[in-house]
Amino acid sequence: MSAAASFRVEKDLLGTLEVPADAYYGIQTLRAANNFHLSGVPLSHYPKLVVALAMVKQAAADANRELGHLSDAKHAAISAACARLIKGDYHEQFVVDMIQGGAGTSTNMNANEVIANVALEAMGHQKGEYQYLHPNNDVNMAQSTNDAYPTAIRLGLLLGHDALLASLDSLIQAFAAKGKEFDHVLKMGRTQLQDAVPMTLGQEFRAFATTMTEDLNRLRSLAPELLTEINLGGTAIGTGINADPGYQALAVQRLATISGQPLVPAADLIEATSDMGAFVLFSGMLKRTAVKLSKICNDLRLLSSGPRTGINEINLPARQPGSSIMPGKVNPVIPEAVNQVAFAIMGNDLALTVAAEGGQLQLNVMEPLIAYKIFDSIRLLQRAMDMLREHCIVGITANEQRCRELVEHSIGLVTALNPYIGYENATRIARVALETGRGVLELVREEKLLDDAMLDDILRPENMIAPRLVPLKA
Amino acid sequence: MSAAASFRVEKDLLGTLEVPADAYYGIQTLRAANNFHLSGVPLSHYPKLVVALAMVKQAAADANRELGHLSDAKHAAISAACARLIKGDYHEQFVVDMIQGGAGTSTNMNANEVIANVALEAMGHQKGEYQYLHPNNDVNMAQSTNDAYPTAIRLGLLLGHDALLASLDSLIQAFAAKGKEFDHVLKMGRTQLQDAVPMTLGQEFRAFATTMTEDLNRLRSLAPELLTEINLGGTAIGTGINADPGYQALAVQRLATISGQPLVPAADLIEATSDMGAFVLFSGMLKRTAVKLSKICNDLRLLSSGPRTGINEINLPARQPGSSIMPGKVNPVIPEAVNQVAFAIMGNDLALTVAAEGGQLQLNVMEPLIAYKIFDSIRLLQRAMDMLREHCIVGITANEQRCRELVEHSIGLVTALNPYIGYENATRIARVALETGRGVLELVREEKLLDDAMLDDILRPENMIAPRLVPLKA
Amino acid sequence: MSAAASFRVEKDLLGTLEVPADAYYGIQTLRAANNFHLSGVPLSHYPKLVVALAMVKQAAADANRELGHLSDAKHAAISAACARLIKGDYHEQFVVDMIQGGAGTSTNMNANEVIANVALEAMGHQKGEYQYLHPNNDVNMAQSTNDAYPTAIRLGLLLGHDALLASLDSLIQAFAAKGKEFDHVLKMGRTQLQDAVPMTLGQEFRAFATTMTEDLNRLRSLAPELLTEINLGGTAIGTGINADPGYQALAVQRLATISGQPLVPAADLIEATSDMGAFVLFSGMLKRTAVKLSKICNDLRLLSSGPRTGINEINLPARQPGSSIMPGKVNPVIPEAVNQVAFAIMGNDLALTVAAEGGQLQLNVMEPLIAYKIFDSIRLLQRAMDMLREHCIVGITANEQRCRELVEHSIGLVTALNPYIGYENATRIARVALETGRGVLELVREEKLLDDAMLDDILRPENMIAPRLVPLKA
Amino acid sequence: MSAAASFRVEKDLLGTLEVPADAYYGIQTLRAANNFHLSGVPLSHYPKLVVALAMVKQAAADANRELGHLSDAKHAAISAACARLIKGDYHEQFVVDMIQGGAGTSTNMNANEVIANVALEAMGHQKGEYQYLHPNNDVNMAQSTNDAYPTAIRLGLLLGHDALLASLDSLIQAFAAKGKEFDHVLKMGRTQLQDAVPMTLGQEFRAFATTMTEDLNRLRSLAPELLTEINLGGTAIGTGINADPGYQALAVQRLATISGQPLVPAADLIEATSDMGAFVLFSGMLKRTAVKLSKICNDLRLLSSGPRTGINEINLPARQPGSSIMPGKVNPVIPEAVNQVAFAIMGNDLALTVAAEGGQLQLNVMEPLIAYKIFDSIRLLQRAMDMLREHCIVGITANEQRCRELVEHSIGLVTALNPYIGYENATRIARVALETGRGVLELVREEKLLDDAMLDDILRPENMIAPRLVPLKA
Repeated sequence: MSAAASFRVEKDLLGTLEVPADAYYGIQTLRAANNFHLSGVPLSHYPKLVVALAMVKQAAADANRELGHLSDAKHAAISAACARLIKGDYHEQFVVDMIQGGAGTSTNMNANEVIANVALEAMGHQKGEYQYLHPNNDVNMAQSTNDAYPTAIRLGLLLGHDALLASLDSLIQAFAAKGKEFDHVLKMGRTQLQDAVPMTLGQEFRAFATTMTEDLNRLRSLAPELLTEINLGGTAIGTGINADPGYQALAVQRLATISGQPLVPAADLIEATSDMGAFVLFSGMLKRTAVKLSKICNDLRLLSSGPRTGINEINLPARQPGSSIMPGKVNPVIPEAVNQVAFAIMGNDLALTVAAEGGQLQLNVMEPLIAYKIFDSIRLLQRAMDMLREHCIVGITANEQRCRELVEHSIGLVTALNPYIGYENATRIARVALETGRGVLELVREEKLLDDAMLDDILRPENMIAPRLVPLKA
Repeated sequence: MSAAASFRVEKDLLGTLEVPADAYYGIQTLRAANNFHLSGVPLSHYPKLVVALAMVKQAAADANRELGHLSDAKHAAISAACARLIKGDYHEQFVVDMIQGGAGTSTNMNANEVIANVALEAMGHQKGEYQYLHPNNDVNMAQSTNDAYPTAIRLGLLLGHDALLASLDSLIQAFAAKGKEFDHVLKMGRTQLQDAVPMTLGQEFRAFATTMTEDLNRLRSLAPELLTEINLGGTAIGTGINADPGYQALAVQRLATISGQPLVPAADLIEATSDMGAFVLFSGMLKRTAVKLSKICNDLRLLSSGPRTGINEINLPARQPGSSIMPGKVNPVIPEAVNQVAFAIMGNDLALTVAAEGGQLQLNVMEPLIAYKIFDSIRLLQRAMDMLREHCIVGITANEQRCRELVEHSIGLVTALNPYIGYENATRIARVALETGRGVLELVREEKLLDDAMLDDILRPENMIAPRLVPLKA
Repeated sequence: MSAAASFRVEKDLLGTLEVPADAYYGIQTLRAANNFHLSGVPLSHYPKLVVALAMVKQAAADANRELGHLSDAKHAAISAACARLIKGDYHEQFVVDMIQGGAGTSTNMNANEVIANVALEAMGHQKGEYQYLHPNNDVNMAQSTNDAYPTAIRLGLLLGHDALLASLDSLIQAFAAKGKEFDHVLKMGRTQLQDAVPMTLGQEFRAFATTMTEDLNRLRSLAPELLTEINLGGTAIGTGINADPGYQALAVQRLATISGQPLVPAADLIEATSDMGAFVLFSGMLKRTAVKLSKICNDLRLLSSGPRTGINEINLPARQPGSSIMPGKVNPVIPEAVNQVAFAIMGNDLALTVAAEGGQLQLNVMEPLIAYKIFDSIRLLQRAMDMLREHCIVGITANEQRCRELVEHSIGLVTALNPYIGYENATRIARVALETGRGVLELVREEKLLDDAMLDDILRPENMIAPRLVPLKA
Repeated sequence: MSAAASFRVEKDLLGTLEVPADAYYGIQTLRAANNFHLSGVPLSHYPKLVVALAMVKQAAADANRELGHLSDAKHAAISAACARLIKGDYHEQFVVDMIQGGAGTSTNMNANEVIANVALEAMGHQKGEYQYLHPNNDVNMAQSTNDAYPTAIRLGLLLGHDALLASLDSLIQAFAAKGKEFDHVLKMGRTQLQDAVPMTLGQEFRAFATTMTEDLNRLRSLAPELLTEINLGGTAIGTGINADPGYQALAVQRLATISGQPLVPAADLIEATSDMGAFVLFSGMLKRTAVKLSKICNDLRLLSSGPRTGINEINLPARQPGSSIMPGKVNPVIPEAVNQVAFAIMGNDLALTVAAEGGQLQLNVMEPLIAYKIFDSIRLLQRAMDMLREHCIVGITANEQRCRELVEHSIGLVTALNPYIGYENATRIARVALETGRGVLELVREEKLLDDAMLDDILRPENMIAPRLVPLKA
């Protein structure tokens, strides 16, 4: 008898199933959980998506009440339930796998069922007593998965966007601070991994800040451009069949108010129902940011290579012992992890691009994968940026002496002397230096091509790292 | 002796080579052509890139003259040569492979050498008499490949952008025209390849126009945002070493004037020298457009499937015989080709993304591949859009009778009756229809659930394809 | 005081940390867990990898004992601990993120520490009393992450391979059974989505079985070819520095015995330390299988499209209600989910390919991502195949009548009549049929081109679906 | 009148067109050329594909004659034409774009028409007089594009395979020769870009030879396994409809003889008609080889970085001047180009994978793109390997002195001393060395921890680069 009590029986078009008594989800969620045992990543893994679903349900309920289709009592109960989800409660009830067939129907029903059962309890009923409040008829009223689900994805992305921007901004500040800190550290620039001409380590880090700032600005403007047009109210295919003519405007307006996001109705609901272009471009932008981070981390690993047989211009903070065999070995583990995150994001972008191409006629049934991969990319990117800043960038130190020695022993230094000693002398000095292993400055001094005062002037960092009007020939 | 006359001997740092006597390119181009026998696609394959290179050289020459570094005579000769290239002459002299090592140095030198030799002839000298005008010292004056080449790529993309937009716009017009033409054709919408609810074929084509219009607007705004910041004047690594302090501003301003593009100097030249982010995002956008086109072409192939064992709602114009074995078979060859173009563009996007990630320190040496793939994507996309419009969209016809029959025999029609006959009746009618193979309307009439006037009213297209206030219960 | 008891203090080269008192992992695991908060997927998510790590540690301990470097007591304790892990115990202690810097060092140390602490308890000591048994000195003895970790990945893949093959084999049996069940169901074949010539539904499903059987055979042979060569014994970079000359052969031999896998030492340990080629090809093969499954699922969705406005030749079993708005709608959710799994696997393949390219010099530091993505692909693939078989294939039914009607009304049928009525008649009949909407057979009968006996003979399924010597002209 | 003479009029099911009088192709080729103006890469770009098409036509003609369907006169003329194509003549007549709709029909018809017209002239007729020999009825007799075209692709790949293997083999020999040449050059190994333990430069290059040898063996075995099963004889969808029951066996046998390739008939022709798995895996293997080459080239660029501010252990041969601004700069242009080829091949693999997924029902209509991308990958890979060997590997020299100095100044050297001086001493020495910038050996000598004889023994290359039984404590 107690065993019987641990389940309640629910019913849908396909028949009945035993739902765990303490579950707030219902039969359709259970079917989906049984069907899709794939990634092992449940909806609850992405709280912003759950919150966004609750906001959509709240907005729909508000509109339905206002239009006279939903009673005040039901509306109050649904509102209470949505508020709990928005607060973060009951998220563990979102058990369906992120990879699922059905174009998001299971996600939508998981939300409908959890809200219905939380609401039922608030009304003093038992879970599953849907005669008092029904997941479909009441919670899902006037919605189709095909409009509610894409709306929730867009909103979920918007809800998490500020945090992403904040992480990126903090990382930029860290790069910029190092740019200032290292402003006086003269070093050799390298192109094609070959010695080029002098610059400062500060310039190098400032360029990291600059390039990420471009992405900050781009991400900041792109998200609202791409994600605020929603198709709520389009119902099944965008024609709005069986919807109240007043529903769309009200529901979108309510959702904008509830979420604080500048949401607007899509102009062509047929198009909006199946179009995945916004996600493809947004993911393309995330990929770009990931690629930039990966390039920066490659640079950090190169610049800190050594300590003796590499470039060794900077030191990354030690985060964990590198090797038990090799004493003193400290590895650049943080940038290495960022590289891998970037590759994972490239893979996500591919998966969702192919999914976007796989839409057919009035719907893209691959949307759950698109949602999964884009939420995953954002999470990975944000965490990787936090990790990079906190565990690496802020602790970087410069080997100033080493940097200067490399400049002074470089052949590339001759480039700076070029306008003063002439191209022929420069070429000859360069060749002799390479052949003998001697320094360019040493040879110039030996040949008395320039006096020390002039050399000091030329080699002053501020003179080498920017355009300069060449003075009259010495 | 005539054999001797078919070559001239040129010299560079590595030694001498015999250059064909009639070649306008020189020794460094020849070395590159010998080194890089890879894709078989020469620079001349992308005329906008060649034109952009010439404009960059012209702008640099203008600035150098104004700053007093280049004589009027040399400037005049260089200008004449650049004008010829901009007009389209001598493009066949751009023989270096699009895939090349050296970060574009070979491309830059190919331009320098061709311009020098064309200019030399204009000055009354022989090709190769570089004592009068030198590819490096004069044509390349104040430039590094590292600033001239990325500038030319950006400019080349801008120069071709209007044509891309025009092709896209024409395609949109074609979709929109069909949207209007098919406005009265009622048909079933399908989600997940299953019968859904009615819509019009006009709505379906208008959605194609809508979704591509979003891309038109996005592409129109994105290109200037991404591509007008140039690093001309940064020289080797962005520090502008050995450049005249007045050079950058002058050169950029001249290039803007010459090209008619709103070019501006990059704020951080160190960053701009190595950053490939603009190309990654631009390619991401091209990929999005390609994915949308591919989805549309999948739809066209589905909608025209048949003629007897498929959906057969529309007819694509016949472009070529389909099969000698099977009389009357006409295949959707145009959309099929567009799909393949889209896949090629996805591949291009991947290749250039990996190349962008491969940048190191002060330069991205993989930039030639990035340029190659992005120019290729644009060309493929533009040609595919022209082909699709001209050879397919404008000739599409509707099988109106077939469309209406499918609606009338559909089960989905019951959805429209739902608000009038009630959910229970609707479900029962649907089940009986499915089991017996009979029509929903036939059953409704037989049961006298609705009279003919009411049925006619409900089934009027304009009433089924938009939200509607349900009248009082019949 | 009780608070103090909830932690123990451990120490490594970088200092001390408080490790939870009940944790079997130690300070280095904790550092890694703190460093890499990325994917949220811990090592324990892939039990075969944990088991493989334990087997490697066991094999090393065996070799070390036999060579006299490890005492019997320590060996016994390590063995007991490894046995527990192999049995499946303590897996929850493998808490490090699958995405991690350090080339797998953290994974290796997680294993070393868990084994050490389990062993210590078995020896009657407290967790953390490493003076009695040390994670590095004893458990990791003679190993480097650089040989132990890649060996464990290979072994982990081999350990899970039979289950993958079994799932694939079961799916093939399901396809083959349907192939037999539907052998008598004549239907139209389609090329380019256009009506082609007749075949049987049985042939169609048998082709699914055939194509997957090719993959079963390929996967069966490829795994041992690619994965049984291991670099255990190469230590840091493959030179085997500081290893006992007898160690490699013994350790590999022991590991082969323990695991039951035909492991052999890599011929060139330098190469084997950094090479990721085996994983790239293995993933390429998984991708191929995924692509085939996706194509099959696309076919299933096409063939079951309808019920009234699509092809509707087969019925997929209903797994969940399709739509609350549209009564009777049942969607092909299972194949849809398989498609998405395939796209995810394509993304994984890309991520690991880029990671493989990112190796440098004597190591590929991106190996953790490679391991993560390949284990993920295998898991997704196996689960998707089980899902597809169990929830879809075995329940598919044929609409035999519909299939036959489509054949009889097809234009393509005329192809079968071609050799009997001649090409001119066939072409004319096809054209009239298309224009009038009438049937080919109807027209042939009307024109008395063939008598009924002859028509019956030609249209007998077995005569239309294979090459046939055309009889003398009727 | 002369204008009239420059064209001939041909006719097909869609009407008539003017074909250039001197063209050996006909109306269907012309339609395709007009339809598909996309990549700009014509079929003639891949001669092995053209040759393979001719061999397929020859084999079919042989079988048809033997079965009594083709007269001796027609057979002789077709044979003469095929022989010319196989010899390399008339390839410029293969003008259709590699990207095309129609599943290869246009490629097949291009072959049929060229062969017919060459044959007609051999018979003494005019081009276009198809009443004497018809492209479809005679040249294409018993074939469908759907069996002839995939067969030709497979055969074309096989025909070029030996050359690919030869290029790879030559490259391996070059690596191996350097491995031998540098066998005595002691250097530091690096993991995670950090100093690790000693090895020889010879071992490093030998590992390059080893890893590519694995690919040579794999490619050698994989091509016949994947490509020798052909579907010739399956006609439209694999049922062999309207084919002579004796045709398939004869045609395949003839093709095997003509081509010298071990071709066999596919067991399941339905499956073989649409399956692209072989291409996906073959491309996956090409991608693996490309990834390995790219990793090697990354290493070469790292090892040759400098000359003063990088690793500078080896010198790559100078192939072209590096910079006019920076005297003496020589860049690693050849490896850089190989990297880009590898990225292009990764892009090709993606494009063809997506195309493979896009197959539907009885055919994969995306096969032209698959063929294009796989032939392109092979060409790029082969040319890149030839370039790398000829222009880079054979000319590499070692900076032996630099290599040894880096070893001697490394901290990692202490690892080799570990077993002799004990872990505590080693750790202390390492720390002091790092802090003071002094050498490990210098410190060990200063502290008299080991005498010079012992140090010499330990540091002998052969003792540091392999496992070694540690002698009794000194």
